[in-house]
Amino acid sequence: MAIDEPIPPIPESEALDPRKVALGALLFDDPRLSGDGTVACVSCHNMALGGSDQFARSIGAGGALGVVNAPTVFNARFNFAQFWDGRAATLEDQIDGPISNPREMGSSWPEVLGKLREDREHVAAFQEIYKDGIQVVNIKDAIATFERSLTTPDSRFDRYLKGDAGALTEEEKAGYELFKMYRCVACHQGVNIGGNMFAKIGVFGDYVADRGNPTEADLGRFNVTGRSRDRHVFKVPSLRNVALTAPYFHDGSAKTLDEAVVVMAKYQLGRRISDTDLTRIVAFLQTLTGELRGQPLWQ
Amino acid sequence: MAIDEPIPPIPESEALDPRKVALGALLFDDPRLSGDGTVACVSCHNMALGGSDQFARSIGAGGALGVVNAPTVFNARFNFAQFWDGRAATLEDQIDGPISNPREMGSSWPEVLGKLREDREHVAAFQEIYKDGIQVVNIKDAIATFERSLTTPDSRFDRYLKGDAGALTEEEKAGYELFKMYRCVACHQGVNIGGNMFAKIGVFGDYVADRGNPTEADLGRFNVTGRSRDRHVFKVPSLRNVALTAPYFHDGSAKTLDEAVVVMAKYQLGRRISDTDLTRIVAFLQTLTGELRGQPLWQ
Repeated sequence: MAIDEPIPPIPESEALDPRKVALGALLFDDPRLSGDGTVACVSCHNMALGGSDQFARSIGAGGALGVVNAPTVFNARFNFAQFWDGRAATLEDQIDGPISNPREMGSSWPEVLGKLREDREHVAAFQEIYKDGIQVVNIKDAIATFERSLTTPDSRFDRYLKGDAGALTEEEKAGYELFKMYRCVACHQGVNIGGNMFAKIGVFGDYVADRGNPTEADLGRFNVTGRSRDRHVFKVPSLRNVALTAPYFHDGSAKTLDEAVVVMAKYQLGRRISDTDLTRIVAFLQTLTGELRGQPLWQ
Repeated sequence: MAIDEPIPPIPESEALDPRKVALGALLFDDPRLSGDGTVACVSCHNMALGGSDQFARSIGAGGALGVVNAPTVFNARFNFAQFWDGRAATLEDQIDGPISNPREMGSSWPEVLGKLREDREHVAAFQEIYKDGIQVVNIKDAIATFERSLTTPDSRFDRYLKGDAGALTEEEKAGYELFKMYRCVACHQGVNIGGNMFAKIGVFGDYVADRGNPTEADLGRFNVTGRSRDRHVFKVPSLRNVALTAPYFHDGSAKTLDEAVVVMAKYQLGRRISDTDLTRIVAFLQTLTGELRGQPLWQ
């Protein structure tokens, strides 16, 4: 069935070096990567919170407020670029951002290297895998390898795509059909049901102006390219596990899935959708929650 | 500019064997390809009528009424398949259809070969190009080569795509933006602004039932595949030169561009669009008229 659908299921993960995955997991949880020792990667990308956190904008080192909603780390490997504005091409490149951002980890690579090299166990663990021990490139490699292990296959929707017609209820199937009919799928497409293109938020209306209090972050991809047509353009976010990752949008302004769908319909499609259709689409979105390492995700 | 757009301009045509093009043109106009000598390819694919005719359904040999609207031969080479139901993969394969269809040319290849081989000039013309003279494969090659020469580049829209910002008026540009915003472009995409995918006519409503008097031809691609999900599925038609090819749809039921856009909005998008937006979209569609061999198309 999958071949005729605009969304393929999450593929089986290939073998990753288990030593790198384990070391990456340690580093992911390590607050020494932040300047004041209060923030680790996991602070904003919590495995128990859909790979994200529950805040509109995350709290960084020193209590600083981030400028955008933390995207989930789950399935991030399938995104065609990282960050809301797509400014990093790879998971490895992405790591530079939070490490040095004063509103996130507020540190620097020399500082991180210094702290980690004081830890004999870390030194040994790195040297077992990497000839040159604790280096920036190796830290990134370990963390990115760990992140590549964070795929969430086997959602009910994926089971449906693979041919299990009973994996979805009739209401959820109707929601998927509506998702395609309303052309949500025109942007939320591919294996991540998003994450493979950029789009402007606010096609049929000025989302940013209507919401009020515009910020520099609202400029989106414009901040990367400087092209005026990239104002308010963002990477289309993945809808995988979307039921777990409220609040929604780059600004975290939508508190519920219902609200998010209504706002998308208004600004991206220029229409109101009926309550019945809304209920069905949300029911479909709730089938996108997958499993991590064979276990159901925390809800 | 073209690289960021979902529609590329028509490319420059490559060199075609001018002897084949000339022979194909002769054959295209030759009523001996029909059983009763009253119909040539050009009867339904008239260069002065947008490469089509002005009828909802064409008149074939013996005055028979065709079952679908004749699609234009212009730019047919860019379609991913031929016929409304996509049953022919190539221009060469397509020719078999009208030759033998009793509602079109009502002939057969042995009959056509017999007639053409009586014509000394034709025999000589074929032998100059093809060692084995008048053969079905050579007739098809010549006609298909002629058809490949029938591209219509340099529409105002293509000039706009190539960077001539002044080629479109502000209203026409607004129409193009709406064409994208309403996601018309989700189906009418690629170099032919259509012709590269199949789609069901009647997504938000039962177009065929609402129109009444359903025919076998309304089953569309179902007639090719026998799969129930292919009922009412057709090749998305090209919008190139669409201002010249009324009436519209596989059944020729829409008499004007305005009507066609309103019906598409209703059945494919499930919405009404404002008169202002309709006017702009139609203004955009009128910029899709190209040139044939460097000359404006007859309007």
